[in-house]
Amino acid sequence: MADVAGSTPEPIARLIEEFHRLPGIGPKSAQRLAYHILRVPEREALALAEAIGDVKRRIVLCSTCLNITEADPCLLCQDPRRDRTMVCVVEQPLDILAIERAGSYRGAYHVLHGLLNPMDGIGPEDLHLRELVERVRGGEVVEIIMATNPSLEGEATAMYVQRLLGPAGVRVTRLARGLPSGADLEYADDVTLARALEGRQEI
Amino acid sequence: MADVAGSTPEPIARLIEEFHRLPGIGPKSAQRLAYHILRVPEREALALAEAIGDVKRRIVLCSTCLNITEADPCLLCQDPRRDRTMVCVVEQPLDILAIERAGSYRGAYHVLHGLLNPMDGIGPEDLHLRELVERVRGGEVVEIIMATNPSLEGEATAMYVQRLLGPAGVRVTRLARGLPSGADLEYADDVTLARALEGRQEI
Repeated sequence: MADVAGSTPEPIARLIEEFHRLPGIGPKSAQRLAYHILRVPEREALALAEAIGDVKRRIVLCSTCLNITEADPCLLCQDPRRDRTMVCVVEQPLDILAIERAGSYRGAYHVLHGLLNPMDGIGPEDLHLRELVERVRGGEVVEIIMATNPSLEGEATAMYVQRLLGPAGVRVTRLARGLPSGADLEYADDVTLARALEGRQEI
Repeated sequence: MADVAGSTPEPIARLIEEFHRLPGIGPKSAQRLAYHILRVPEREALALAEAIGDVKRRIVLCSTCLNITEADPCLLCQDPRRDRTMVCVVEQPLDILAIERAGSYRGAYHVLHGLLNPMDGIGPEDLHLRELVERVRGGEVVEIIMATNPSLEGEATAMYVQRLLGPAGVRVTRLARGLPSGADLEYADDVTLARALEGRQEI
């Protein structure tokens, strides 16, 4: 945008544009954020700019599990108390945080950084599957737990991994489907109820 | 946050924190934004970081009207076609954009960078009123149009400016109150309706 009288000065217009690129930030929010940056003390604004640069400079993918990390291998892969015979396969690094928060899993992880999605042109070669195959070939892995989302893409990816690694003699499981804890049966959707019935267990 | 196994690496935790400082960005959105930055190409992430730095480095306040600008005086104040006898007083630079978009005003502006708000401890000395008094003293200004929001703080600020500059012989007006264009009388709130009645005009 040219800096004509009554318009937004170019640096602000550009900052609005950059904020608008971020997911979930509409044009109005982008404008509000840019003017906020203009108002806050320089130190505070530059702290955000530096934090962005630092993330790009200091974060790498773990060469074993492909989780994000500052040190390679990552601290999870370095931890001698983790069980390396189980590998929990997730779509993205955030999923590891969720599982670690739950606190009951003590195995290893593998991050695919995506899910199969033919509609968006994302095929097996776009996911970090080659590294998973290598790990299984290493011989230590006994079970692969597919912890992908219960979505079309998550299911398709789980099925693909099963077909890819099942023949290698490794056990491929996936997270249980059913009613979420604290849910109200009356309001459960059909698919969830059907899965809960299918997966019913002895009391 | 310490970089322990299964936790967020420090640079990401810090970026989440910085995003979370921004207005309207909750902890979940901040996390989503930080992981987005991690995923996008370095060039794209650094473009945002640089745009933030540029805004802080290149934008100053116009010494005449206190609008944000790259050149001082700003292009609005430099424009010989603008009528300097009228000064429209606004809370923030964004308000100038709104009025310019409407396209009918050809006078000058003055940005207060705030409104009187005793609850938040914002008094007259926190607004750019001294500069407004100077401009009126210059002798060129005939009318001050208070274009502050129709809120408690906006009204109080308008009243304050009227008492401050009225005695100096300058005409102090404020934007009309009434039904917004295209509004439905049935759904108008009481205050708006009362103001619309008070301000009724001959057809």
